[in-house]
Amino acid sequence: MNILIKNASVLTMTGDIQLMNADTSIAIENGKIKSIGQIPEGFKADRIIDGTNKLAMPGLVNSHTHIAMSLFRNYADDLPFWTWLFDRIMPREEKLIPEHVYWGSMLSIVEMIKFGVTSFADMYFFMDEVAKAVEETGIRASLCIGLSDSGDQEKKIRNTKEFYDNWHGKANGRISVMAGPHAPYSCGPEFLSKVIDMTSEKGMGIHIHLSESKKEVEDSYNLRGKSPIKYVDDLGVFELPTLAAHCVHLSDDDIAILAEKKVSVANNPGSNLKLGNGFARVEDMLKSGINVALGTDGSASNNNLNMFEEINLAALINKGYTGDTTSIPATTAVKMATLNGAKALGIDKEVGTLEAGKKADIIMIDLNKPHFYPRYNLVASLAYSAQASDVETVIVDGKILMENYELKTIDLEKVMFNAERCAKSLIK
Amino acid sequence: MNILIKNASVLTMTGDIQLMNADTSIAIENGKIKSIGQIPEGFKADRIIDGTNKLAMPGLVNSHTHIAMSLFRNYADDLPFWTWLFDRIMPREEKLIPEHVYWGSMLSIVEMIKFGVTSFADMYFFMDEVAKAVEETGIRASLCIGLSDSGDQEKKIRNTKEFYDNWHGKANGRISVMAGPHAPYSCGPEFLSKVIDMTSEKGMGIHIHLSESKKEVEDSYNLRGKSPIKYVDDLGVFELPTLAAHCVHLSDDDIAILAEKKVSVANNPGSNLKLGNGFARVEDMLKSGINVALGTDGSASNNNLNMFEEINLAALINKGYTGDTTSIPATTAVKMATLNGAKALGIDKEVGTLEAGKKADIIMIDLNKPHFYPRYNLVASLAYSAQASDVETVIVDGKILMENYELKTIDLEKVMFNAERCAKSLIK
Repeated sequence: MNILIKNASVLTMTGDIQLMNADTSIAIENGKIKSIGQIPEGFKADRIIDGTNKLAMPGLVNSHTHIAMSLFRNYADDLPFWTWLFDRIMPREEKLIPEHVYWGSMLSIVEMIKFGVTSFADMYFFMDEVAKAVEETGIRASLCIGLSDSGDQEKKIRNTKEFYDNWHGKANGRISVMAGPHAPYSCGPEFLSKVIDMTSEKGMGIHIHLSESKKEVEDSYNLRGKSPIKYVDDLGVFELPTLAAHCVHLSDDDIAILAEKKVSVANNPGSNLKLGNGFARVEDMLKSGINVALGTDGSASNNNLNMFEEINLAALINKGYTGDTTSIPATTAVKMATLNGAKALGIDKEVGTLEAGKKADIIMIDLNKPHFYPRYNLVASLAYSAQASDVETVIVDGKILMENYELKTIDLEKVMFNAERCAKSLIK
Repeated sequence: MNILIKNASVLTMTGDIQLMNADTSIAIENGKIKSIGQIPEGFKADRIIDGTNKLAMPGLVNSHTHIAMSLFRNYADDLPFWTWLFDRIMPREEKLIPEHVYWGSMLSIVEMIKFGVTSFADMYFFMDEVAKAVEETGIRASLCIGLSDSGDQEKKIRNTKEFYDNWHGKANGRISVMAGPHAPYSCGPEFLSKVIDMTSEKGMGIHIHLSESKKEVEDSYNLRGKSPIKYVDDLGVFELPTLAAHCVHLSDDDIAILAEKKVSVANNPGSNLKLGNGFARVEDMLKSGINVALGTDGSASNNNLNMFEEINLAALINKGYTGDTTSIPATTAVKMATLNGAKALGIDKEVGTLEAGKKADIIMIDLNKPHFYPRYNLVASLAYSAQASDVETVIVDGKILMENYELKTIDLEKVMFNAERCAKSLIK
């Protein structure tokens, strides 16, 4: 289907995050952006979307989450971390069956589409269910099975291989698959080496949690005499394209390693605050050249999947933390949630900016709201005033997933009903 | 008009923040809550509001703002504080005329009503225009003229007296008036003493900025050998009911003074972060018994008036700042934005909770959204998942200001048009 967006303001996020004003057209053909600016001669649109008083921009990328954990949203809050994890979350996770993961994933995908997320990176289990939900709904995702070294290691390696073979590149390329060794503290050196061998052989990337809590880093020094970053680097993890989630507690040496090895970092400000882990050195990481993206983490520790909140948090808390009002300006925060996210997922050749030849992952923001007036600086608006609920239209892979606030591929009531039903059966 | 809300979940915020589930009625008569629970015998409703899958709760209180500054929203961001203030904001403020303040106020009142704010405390100039906007729109406010000691001090004192005489108790009691000495650094001891005398004579309260930035506190020690808190306490400010905005940089002695003198503090997490001022000691203040409320500050330093964002920030950043995941639980954050706000404005006998006999300032949250599922804990939902855009109905003083997301007392398009027009004339 050919789509023509007319008369929109357009934020391309290319080069100097180019903003094109109010009378710009975007032509979409066979799922890709054909042109931005003038309508190409002879272009025939099957659908025309009026962009008057709307801003078209790249869809947001949620670079680290566990979407099925929506089933535990608002179930365990304001608790000490270990109570939260061991007494509340893990006993319920043990009861999870594939159906639960499917409906939890559907609930989160609904939420993400409504809030302008077009791609996400997910780590969990029963990942076939997540992949099915991605395929059905039309969103884009990088998926991995979370791996720890307990139990049958060979079987775990095999599962990831199979998951890769079954799903990588599927759904018209909307699904990509990574290996997901959970974290240094759950993956010993022997297992991690096996994961690296398999990942390397398949040409996959790696998605891993690193240096999330102060305790994790202290334990690593006590056990191994080095930081979690140095530990996985010494084993060779960073020779593969790596998406490292959290990276809150970093030494200067850690930052130098991440920069040298071109590791992408998924910064999760909301989750890091809520779980008492504090403030990542975002400014320092960006200055050293690290690609820092933004993520929500799971909605059991957030408690939503609202990337506009993460953009806002990134732009605010780094100023508070450094005392420097110029830290993480609006442009940087928005870039972290778009182009940097696409880079972190390894899909920046396809999405992350709006430009001719790229896939059409586009969201449109309804600017006809009081908090968008006066109209001085739309990029500042996105970081400091916008609401996720201002997202009015969502296009992924050239397909309209939401238009005029209405979901086109998902029965919302059915999803909410089934998510509630699954949650009840887990908690009783 | 008699209103009956039927079948709602109700969060009263009384006592242990009582939550009543799903089948609760609220009867409203002559602007006041007549009953919560059963429908009183013989109660005749002129209007019935269906509360199915909705949460009724006290309207939010924005305890510190400068609403006309919406005209500078997204005009000057990511700049050093002094560039922001002296090069960008103040030169434009000097060009303000009453009409600008009126339309800037209308823009902010629209935004606040849509986002569930029913009362606010404002400090600015041309305050007759703000009062007019409050009177017309139906919102509730505590207003003060910002006072500094430059120029004709007697005239300034007289202006506040007149403003009090003209507006205090007006609009069916929705408007109250305070004295607004701007800050210790803009009000010398002689002028501050005059303000105290006048305020005391009139029986007014005081709204003042205190200890917002590190620099302010350092300057105060250099100039006066004491903190801003100690300076104004020694002059007698705290003998009057005081609403102190910010209070970011406090010593233990400062906290002890604020507690002893029963000063209310308006904590503004978003603004404090954005202007690089850091983190207030909210946990310590609450532990010492201080009434800590929440505010947005003006939308030139936020950049919106979304109290749900401030609730979320309060519940998140204090955990990150203290490293304690139990710091500022959801219940406390919601209380800061409701009952504590009402106390700070000196109107807690009238509003701030839902209970029989209080004025009907009620908002209704639409729970039929994916981020409210599953349904474990509605108070946690409010702090961690809710969006300001989930506010569906707003009642102030027993009058419906918004129903089913539609404003009832304000022409939204007219407000946005005029705010944009005024802003353009200020910036050109």
